[in-house]
Amino acid sequence: MKIGDALKHYRVKPGDKVALSAINAADASLYEGGKSASLELFDELRDELQELQKVLYAQNKHRVLIVLQAMDSGGKDGCVKHVFSRVDPQGVNVKAFKKPSEEELAHDFLWRVHQHVPGNGQIVIFNRSHYEDILAVRVKKLFGDEVWKRRYRHVIEFERMLAEEGTTIIKLFLHISKDEQKRRLESRLANPAKYWKFNPDDLSDRARWDDFQKGYEDLIEKTSTDQAPWFIIPGDRKWYRNLVVARIMVDVLRGLKMEFPTVNWDPRSVVIE
Amino acid sequence: MKIGDALKHYRVKPGDKVALSAINAADASLYEGGKSASLELFDELRDELQELQKVLYAQNKHRVLIVLQAMDSGGKDGCVKHVFSRVDPQGVNVKAFKKPSEEELAHDFLWRVHQHVPGNGQIVIFNRSHYEDILAVRVKKLFGDEVWKRRYRHVIEFERMLAEEGTTIIKLFLHISKDEQKRRLESRLANPAKYWKFNPDDLSDRARWDDFQKGYEDLIEKTSTDQAPWFIIPGDRKWYRNLVVARIMVDVLRGLKMEFPTVNWDPRSVVIE
Repeated sequence: MKIGDALKHYRVKPGDKVALSAINAADASLYEGGKSASLELFDELRDELQELQKVLYAQNKHRVLIVLQAMDSGGKDGCVKHVFSRVDPQGVNVKAFKKPSEEELAHDFLWRVHQHVPGNGQIVIFNRSHYEDILAVRVKKLFGDEVWKRRYRHVIEFERMLAEEGTTIIKLFLHISKDEQKRRLESRLANPAKYWKFNPDDLSDRARWDDFQKGYEDLIEKTSTDQAPWFIIPGDRKWYRNLVVARIMVDVLRGLKMEFPTVNWDPRSVVIE
Repeated sequence: MKIGDALKHYRVKPGDKVALSAINAADASLYEGGKSASLELFDELRDELQELQKVLYAQNKHRVLIVLQAMDSGGKDGCVKHVFSRVDPQGVNVKAFKKPSEEELAHDFLWRVHQHVPGNGQIVIFNRSHYEDILAVRVKKLFGDEVWKRRYRHVIEFERMLAEEGTTIIKLFLHISKDEQKRRLESRLANPAKYWKFNPDDLSDRARWDDFQKGYEDLIEKTSTDQAPWFIIPGDRKWYRNLVVARIMVDVLRGLKMEFPTVNWDPRSVVIE
């Protein structure tokens, strides 16, 4: 297989069983050449992504939602920065969902995310998402178990509605190993310009690593649908993660078969005085 | 004078009189070398902007609002794309304000813009803004004259509040000549991939060129304040416009004297298991 198979290879099909511990987070099997050889291809993919976004924006028809989830230090920020930094900032919005505010908690859990879904011609990236309202609620026991269990249905139906109304949805789980997380957290502690990224509270999430992994496995199995599939992206090697995500993005956008809009007037007849 | 004087040179001070017809839209006087020589400097400025945004985001303290206004084809989209495309998309949001919806019209004119002002650590770019609710209302006589006249006060007080609450505001008017607009509109008609950018209705705005220029002169004079200054950027030469805007952005962000946040725990004492 080649990198061109990423879309198919890393996609979780409805009914698939997910065992994260059996998935090698350091996998780089779809690209033989290694990091330095990959940079030229990555560059080409970013250029193509830039071109595809131009048509998306011009056509003002399709809406694209990318949901990013990962353990702490899993690479959500870095992935956005590297894969999308060449795209016109006007056409891509990143919405990071943090701990909900009092007002947000005073509404249903989809209220705050619904406000930020993409409109026509837009790409929106959710850095964390409504899936935290299942995962964190489950692992940290914030509400009774019936709450996160019924939310599977809520997110599936919500995403189905978005998809049927014209939104293309891609959900990416950046999968890192526990050892890799340790290395990344330690590197934050070794660099004063990265201290701000480190939150001592993150360690309590790390202490519940297995619970989170189990939560993710269940969540991905239950909510990977045809209209809003999950992809499990090997995340230990940043270059490979970026390459795979760029490849998937390009293939998904190509699949929309977009074109510049035609106009209902004759350009040759216009006179500019 | 040099390009380093742009911040001062193109700023409209409170009390300044503005006569757009007396300002050369093809001005490139702060940079001697011409376009090709300027690209290296432009590259450096974009790199510095990228670095400054990282600190802005990490420090999570300052908020930066850029208001972009111009005549049709004045370069708002191109300016955003070129100056900001290297910045982490997570830290910069572009909000384009189009013709208001029914719901928006059913609220005060600041309601829809207020929802999109930057939060801590964010840069937000308004592509058109609340200034359309003065300018278009005036030129197209959408409401009585008393409406746009009293809105000067409303926008001044709104921006003062934002500034006093911690937002840095920069307002950029991209100034192009009528001849240059003609060239740009014609180039859209000559390229099928640009047809979508052309709206035959734009010609009716062009027919009122002088009214719009007069509206802008008055608006800039009346609303350029210490806390939210206007800059009149020569826009006929795209490379120079981009260079000046990048230079101004860098100088404004430098002026915030930002630094990576310190932490209230000891990085050496943390053990990651």
